Amino acid sequence: MLPLRLQPGSHVPLYIQIRDQVRALVVSGALRPGDRIPASRELARQLGVHRTTVANAYAELEAEGLIHGHVGRGTFITGAATGAHRPPTPATTTAGSDGVRWESLFADERGEETLSRLLPQIPHGAISFLAAKPSAEHFPLDELRACAQAVLRNDGRRILQLGSSDGYEPLRRALFEFLCSEGLAAREEQLLITDGGQQSLDLLCKAFLRPGDAVLMENPTYPGAIAIFASARVRTIGVPVRGTGDDREAPMAEPGLDIGALEAALVQNRAKLILLTPDFQNPTGTTLSLAARRQVLELAARYQVPVVEDHIYARLRFAGPPLPSLKALDRAGMVIQLDSFSKVGFPGLRVGWCLAPERVIERLRLVKQITDLHTDQLAQAVLAEFTRRGWFAKHLARMCKVYAARLAALEAALERHMPDGVQWTRPQGGMCVWVTLPPGLDSSELLMHTRERGVLFAPGRYFFFQNPQPNTLRLGFAAVEERKIARGVAVLGDVLRRKMRRQERGRWENSSRVSLV
Amino acid sequence: MLPLRLQPGSHVPLYIQIRDQVRALVVSGALRPGDRIPASRELARQLGVHRTTVANAYAELEAEGLIHGHVGRGTFITGAATGAHRPPTPATTTAGSDGVRWESLFADERGEETLSRLLPQIPHGAISFLAAKPSAEHFPLDELRACAQAVLRNDGRRILQLGSSDGYEPLRRALFEFLCSEGLAAREEQLLITDGGQQSLDLLCKAFLRPGDAVLMENPTYPGAIAIFASARVRTIGVPVRGTGDDREAPMAEPGLDIGALEAALVQNRAKLILLTPDFQNPTGTTLSLAARRQVLELAARYQVPVVEDHIYARLRFAGPPLPSLKALDRAGMVIQLDSFSKVGFPGLRVGWCLAPERVIERLRLVKQITDLHTDQLAQAVLAEFTRRGWFAKHLARMCKVYAARLAALEAALERHMPDGVQWTRPQGGMCVWVTLPPGLDSSELLMHTRERGVLFAPGRYFFFQNPQPNTLRLGFAAVEERKIARGVAVLGDVLRRKMRRQERGRWENSSRVSLV
Repeated sequence: MLPLRLQPGSHVPLYIQIRDQVRALVVSGALRPGDRIPASRELARQLGVHRTTVANAYAELEAEGLIHGHVGRGTFITGAATGAHRPPTPATTTAGSDGVRWESLFADERGEETLSRLLPQIPHGAISFLAAKPSAEHFPLDELRACAQAVLRNDGRRILQLGSSDGYEPLRRALFEFLCSEGLAAREEQLLITDGGQQSLDLLCKAFLRPGDAVLMENPTYPGAIAIFASARVRTIGVPVRGTGDDREAPMAEPGLDIGALEAALVQNRAKLILLTPDFQNPTGTTLSLAARRQVLELAARYQVPVVEDHIYARLRFAGPPLPSLKALDRAGMVIQLDSFSKVGFPGLRVGWCLAPERVIERLRLVKQITDLHTDQLAQAVLAEFTRRGWFAKHLARMCKVYAARLAALEAALERHMPDGVQWTRPQGGMCVWVTLPPGLDSSELLMHTRERGVLFAPGRYFFFQNPQPNTLRLGFAAVEERKIARGVAVLGDVLRRKMRRQERGRWENSSRVSLV
Repeated sequence: MLPLRLQPGSHVPLYIQIRDQVRALVVSGALRPGDRIPASRELARQLGVHRTTVANAYAELEAEGLIHGHVGRGTFITGAATGAHRPPTPATTTAGSDGVRWESLFADERGEETLSRLLPQIPHGAISFLAAKPSAEHFPLDELRACAQAVLRNDGRRILQLGSSDGYEPLRRALFEFLCSEGLAAREEQLLITDGGQQSLDLLCKAFLRPGDAVLMENPTYPGAIAIFASARVRTIGVPVRGTGDDREAPMAEPGLDIGALEAALVQNRAKLILLTPDFQNPTGTTLSLAARRQVLELAARYQVPVVEDHIYARLRFAGPPLPSLKALDRAGMVIQLDSFSKVGFPGLRVGWCLAPERVIERLRLVKQITDLHTDQLAQAVLAEFTRRGWFAKHLARMCKVYAARLAALEAALERHMPDGVQWTRPQGGMCVWVTLPPGLDSSELLMHTRERGVLFAPGRYFFFQNPQPNTLRLGFAAVEERKIARGVAVLGDVLRRKMRRQERGRWENSSRVSLV
């Protein structure tokens, strides 16, 4: 008697519930290596769920190495992944033995619920709103090739030789001039080149945070930030983002970070850092007002907690007046600004930067050195030349126009195809729109159905580290052509309508508790 | 009365002693902001040391922001760097205040004794044996430019777009084929592309080690390994390297890791990993015999401790028969091999790789993703093309000839110019020779004098994390032309002879304890 008890009302998707319960049965010893488990069709019938739901659970268990399907024989429990949970046995002395129980040596039992697991599953020809990434068809390949030629001809030896942790000098210069042309009031010593936004977060982690330290950040937020802090065993404390359509408490609230909740969190926690994305926040697309920016800085100064400002989307503004960054408003020297070429340029070239007080840059530089010595210099040199020739500014202006049209297409398609009760944010830039479905719907389940019809998006749960809202999803629009946007949203709307109708009809069917014998 | 007490017999260089004692006086409050300290000439006279010694101590204190020299007025204690040692004062509420006490927020008080601090100080025209890096004048710039052109033309969009944490597929393929042509018996799933050897160490740290975990490694070793483990608060346990010329216990010992000491360390410590460089170890240049390799693997299997094999110098063999790597000998699946294009190719392109059992690669891939998403794809693509066209193998063969000639020149110069009592290792490849001076000599002090004459090397103390031997130094020869090698070693020999004569004469002069009033 192996009981699986599903809770359809839970925010945990059904397939995750199945996966986790089967895994628990293996860990507890109730299921043992060699045991046969029901075929997905059979289990789906017993549980009263769609066969896809069970198939997805099995796929995950197979990926973990916990189960294995043998054609014509059935699906069986393997022994492979259970080592971590077994008491260690005495070591053998033969070098020819089966080797190491790696699972027992890893520093963490890592959750594998990362968004990127979905990426390799993108079927050919799919319409994918999954990622927030630039439009590859607009990459200025000729210009970049010319830059690569020029820099390898003029400075090849230096580019290819071991470099400096500060960054490649010509990029530092070109970037600094570009930033000054945008109005930056800083010194070049306040600049550090990194491998991009994700690495900047890793460097900050190493420089500032020890296990158990607390960081305040928006919830939902960028999954890469959730993952790096979890890996460093840092406590992340969520500050809600308002005005995203799922806010019963403050439906008319100004969009963006809840300043009152930020202050409450500062009072209740001894935070080491506040991490924010004031412009076109990922995933919600919301932007912090000027007044709210000033309040954030005032709170940061009052509680003496530095603010890390993620600025990587800020230049992608398509409408409305630009707002000064936290860094630009910072009089107290409290802001560490993270920035990158990834969203405004080419994410395949891993180059970003930090702007911060010199003591911080000096420390980050030491951390950068022990992390990877320095950033790749060919990428730095190409971007230096691209910036120096004025092509970066030109490319940026062009892409804002492209993305503005795509955002407009997305909004028009959402207006046209979304059923009543669906809400979404109205960003003035960036790469994402955040959609909130009626309560009770689960976007992970929705994705299974849209995927069958070649349309992908990012379920909201990947962006929450607290209080997940399964009825949310993110549409990354920047890399999707307008006609595909219209088609993709039409499919999403159609699947959603069917789902909502089925939900109406089937409110009772799934609510019984089912046991698996 | 401010007492500075120097211990000339200590392994701590005199200028470090001065620096640390002045800093301690500031921290204790005996010296306060605004206090004037003696001019370097004056203090040198009082302490009976060379003026350069005091000047070096002052330079370090000034770099730390602890003291500041005003032209015509003297040198004064500043307040800037002492924040970490002061009790925190209540926070001000004004955003216009002086901001954050960053020192109190950093995760560590980081030691700044890194080798790279010496790098920016290389005077123009100096003969530098400081780094273990390739010869830039032999970089095949035309070939690399052709590769950059080809890959941007053929696959530009994919290269510039967000990529995979596994690595750029064409590089994985080209590299895997290259490794198979060398005799690798592995599967492509056992390969992960990284940003180079330093990042691979960082990924291993994150995947395997928690604060307090123990790692066994050669002492002396690569400073980047010492730094990353220290930063992760990992305990490093040293296994001595024999046959380096400073080994009274076993003067005739086979060069390389002391296997007996390795076993003793495994018995005494619950180690998580063993980190080794079997071929042309950095800094000693020693190579582990085939028998010793087998013993290492047997010990690893017996104690169930994985071995991390640093393989980055192994292809740079100029003489003698090649030895199978630990990875090639590994039957138990215990070896994680780190490798890189940095030494055999171009360190400015940050690309390396790991070979390991699939469960380890899968975990490292997840860690890689949260660390920096993926490795720069332009560098990966250029190296893929360079490898695919057979140019990498050709370049490697050429560089082995170049470096063999440089090593021969170095050995000839050492034979010719080193005084009696100086010993050095006889590597058959790699990039470093390790020199042991007679006891009592301090290579850091020697460096001050050779630097004045335009010759630089790496003092041995940077490579030890236990039991430093100040009478050692590393000569990195790969990036130095043969005639410069001869000139540089002649200067080193001359300075050393003078130093040894002065040491003879001055055994008494420095031994008195001097107080500074």
